[in-house]
Amino acid sequence: MPPYLPPPGLDAGTDLVADKSAKPPGRRRFLQGGAVLAGAAATLAGPARAVGEALPVPAWTRSQGRPAAGPYGQPSGFEGRVIRRVREGAQPTFPTAASSLTPLADIFGTITPNGLVFERHHAGIPDIDPEQHRLVIHGLVERPLSFSLNDLLRFPAVSRVHFLECAGNSGSEWRPARKLTVQSLHGLLSCCEWTGVSLGTLLQEVGVAPEAKWLLAEGADAAAMTRSVPLDKALDDALIVYAQNGEMLRPEQGYPLRLLLPGWEGNISVKWLRRLKLGTAPWQSRQETSKYTDLLPDGSSRQFSFVLDVKSVITGPSGGQTLKSRGRQQITGLAWSGHGRIRRVDVSIDGGRNWEEAVLQTPVLDRALTRFSLPWLWDGGPAVLQSRAVDSHGNVQPTRSQLIAARGTESAYHYNGIQSWQVLPSGEVHNVHV
Amino acid sequence: MPPYLPPPGLDAGTDLVADKSAKPPGRRRFLQGGAVLAGAAATLAGPARAVGEALPVPAWTRSQGRPAAGPYGQPSGFEGRVIRRVREGAQPTFPTAASSLTPLADIFGTITPNGLVFERHHAGIPDIDPEQHRLVIHGLVERPLSFSLNDLLRFPAVSRVHFLECAGNSGSEWRPARKLTVQSLHGLLSCCEWTGVSLGTLLQEVGVAPEAKWLLAEGADAAAMTRSVPLDKALDDALIVYAQNGEMLRPEQGYPLRLLLPGWEGNISVKWLRRLKLGTAPWQSRQETSKYTDLLPDGSSRQFSFVLDVKSVITGPSGGQTLKSRGRQQITGLAWSGHGRIRRVDVSIDGGRNWEEAVLQTPVLDRALTRFSLPWLWDGGPAVLQSRAVDSHGNVQPTRSQLIAARGTESAYHYNGIQSWQVLPSGEVHNVHV
Repeated sequence: MPPYLPPPGLDAGTDLVADKSAKPPGRRRFLQGGAVLAGAAATLAGPARAVGEALPVPAWTRSQGRPAAGPYGQPSGFEGRVIRRVREGAQPTFPTAASSLTPLADIFGTITPNGLVFERHHAGIPDIDPEQHRLVIHGLVERPLSFSLNDLLRFPAVSRVHFLECAGNSGSEWRPARKLTVQSLHGLLSCCEWTGVSLGTLLQEVGVAPEAKWLLAEGADAAAMTRSVPLDKALDDALIVYAQNGEMLRPEQGYPLRLLLPGWEGNISVKWLRRLKLGTAPWQSRQETSKYTDLLPDGSSRQFSFVLDVKSVITGPSGGQTLKSRGRQQITGLAWSGHGRIRRVDVSIDGGRNWEEAVLQTPVLDRALTRFSLPWLWDGGPAVLQSRAVDSHGNVQPTRSQLIAARGTESAYHYNGIQSWQVLPSGEVHNVHV
Repeated sequence: MPPYLPPPGLDAGTDLVADKSAKPPGRRRFLQGGAVLAGAAATLAGPARAVGEALPVPAWTRSQGRPAAGPYGQPSGFEGRVIRRVREGAQPTFPTAASSLTPLADIFGTITPNGLVFERHHAGIPDIDPEQHRLVIHGLVERPLSFSLNDLLRFPAVSRVHFLECAGNSGSEWRPARKLTVQSLHGLLSCCEWTGVSLGTLLQEVGVAPEAKWLLAEGADAAAMTRSVPLDKALDDALIVYAQNGEMLRPEQGYPLRLLLPGWEGNISVKWLRRLKLGTAPWQSRQETSKYTDLLPDGSSRQFSFVLDVKSVITGPSGGQTLKSRGRQQITGLAWSGHGRIRRVDVSIDGGRNWEEAVLQTPVLDRALTRFSLPWLWDGGPAVLQSRAVDSHGNVQPTRSQLIAARGTESAYHYNGIQSWQVLPSGEVHNVHV
């Protein structure tokens, strides 16, 4: 259980109300095993409303409801604001070279619901008939093979929870700050329970030639998305995935088959996977030369930086939100590392001068989003909120300044610096660079 | 990783095909760290198709796809059969006294996607405005309080993965077997990552009177669903839930607030929760007297049997499915216990004479669905598949006969006997009693 924040109990200004009509058993506060919260009652300055026996019966209790939600349920109509969005100010050059972002401020826990998992497409979403789709493994193998989806369903299934993050996530942070939400800044990030077959199992079927060192992964979309994958990773923990969060992959996530390389930049987990070719060296495809590389200050290019470094972001309070009243708040956010598990997350409310350790939701899983939280009593003054993650290898999330000192500002990818949210006395929250 | 099933490699009759045109590096099979699978190639009797460099380019690679899936994604149109269904042969007496079942044979891993979480309503689904909804805690408390959703969002959030099962799940198994699918038999079962506030935290706010021993939980639906909850459970691990699998509760799951009592029969986790009243004794509501009790052979009634006992079911192969060919199959299913974690699951293919331990998906969580699996080489003969779960307290799932010996056949609820699936030489799979 997260730490319970003692006084001031319930905040003025909310509609938490005391029952003035009921007869409480006494002025003492009773709780089995609980502490007496001195002075808590005194903070109850909200509007009073009797809540005793005469509770009002709401309209929806007076008549029968809808019979059933039906074959496949949908969110409440009251949640219409919780949607994927295009990055604010984004100007796509071509409609199928698209992306949409997960609403990080409005999701809970660690699992991203399938309807809200971020999208990034280079030539749109193909509508693939799963009966016709095949995965071919060929090249430097003893026995090239073609697998249908039904074939793959007969291999041992593996389910694991892993985050997925686009290498371009948080890319705006390389540049001067303009007002953006956490969805726009960091929403190319999701986490699912993925189910599929271990790629190692399939490589055992085809027989890997000793000279093979790399695989070419190719998608069946119109971009024929093509990336080179080191054989070691393929044999280590790569999955050929057909399901996410308990159901078949969504079309935008690679239906019916995708590669998943846990902890690595999203682009290499090729969607709509149709082919794996084994060879001796990387293919130097467009997506690993002119794209998804980082231009360094000395003019050289940082290539094949597959692993996503340790990172975290506070999702609430976050950019565009407004704190409604002083007093009790929940600081909450997500942390992750492509290197392993999250070991700890520290939170600062003064722009990084002082830090306090946050509570992590358990179980903390390997290369999965980890939810952190910390109660905060906002005194109404200005604050700058930050989070700093440390992973199981001891990697510490850098400040933006540290990251820029190492990598310059010509990169578009692989940003993992600490995010700063400025809280104004008005309660407004904005992204800032400190 | 689950155990890799060695020979016979790839089955005849599937469309796994060998490449006759490509030049493999040799007849030996190479794999870093892998074993040579003697004779595996000899089993490759499927139809051959060249898969070398001249791979056919499918239609969907030749043109741009859809730009993006949009604000809230949906499953592929090819997955239209994966839906909640009413129990086969069910004849509802009133349209809002409804239920729909999770398609257990077509889901993966352990998380049930929100669109497929089972439903059970006694007076339909109310459409509740979250801004107007309140949770009142009153009765034997020092300070009755009313909480809005926004109030609750400011308390420490807790997220945990737990199964949810209707007490009436598998109720058909009390009676003679008629042909049913695993969805119809056992589909009042789902598992989500739930997020909310610890009820203990809220009880600390209101101050529990020393004489209080029970809570009345009441829903805001037209049934005013009403159940009595022991205070010990409320203080132990009860949650006031507002989110499931990362997004706000679905309307059919209690939007915007529900009670969740981990490991207990689903009905007591009251949806659309509007009120908790503390008192000294249970209220003997309709749903805990005439319903959700078990009529025993001696004519007495088993009441307040809250905890769901250890249970498992093979979801594939399962009733209504047909094995398409001999050879490699995956036996897979789900196990759970209201008492704690699943310790092991054994699988029998001969109706319970011999047992083999299945592989459990990790992490195995407390009172959560646990996925088990076991490779099986079907020889084409008749078989009876069973699974038997053991939980962390040493509870062993009983056979149907053992359960009936203890409880008779007048119950409608709380069935946790071993399920038997008969596999015929035709490949057809049916539910049977053995």
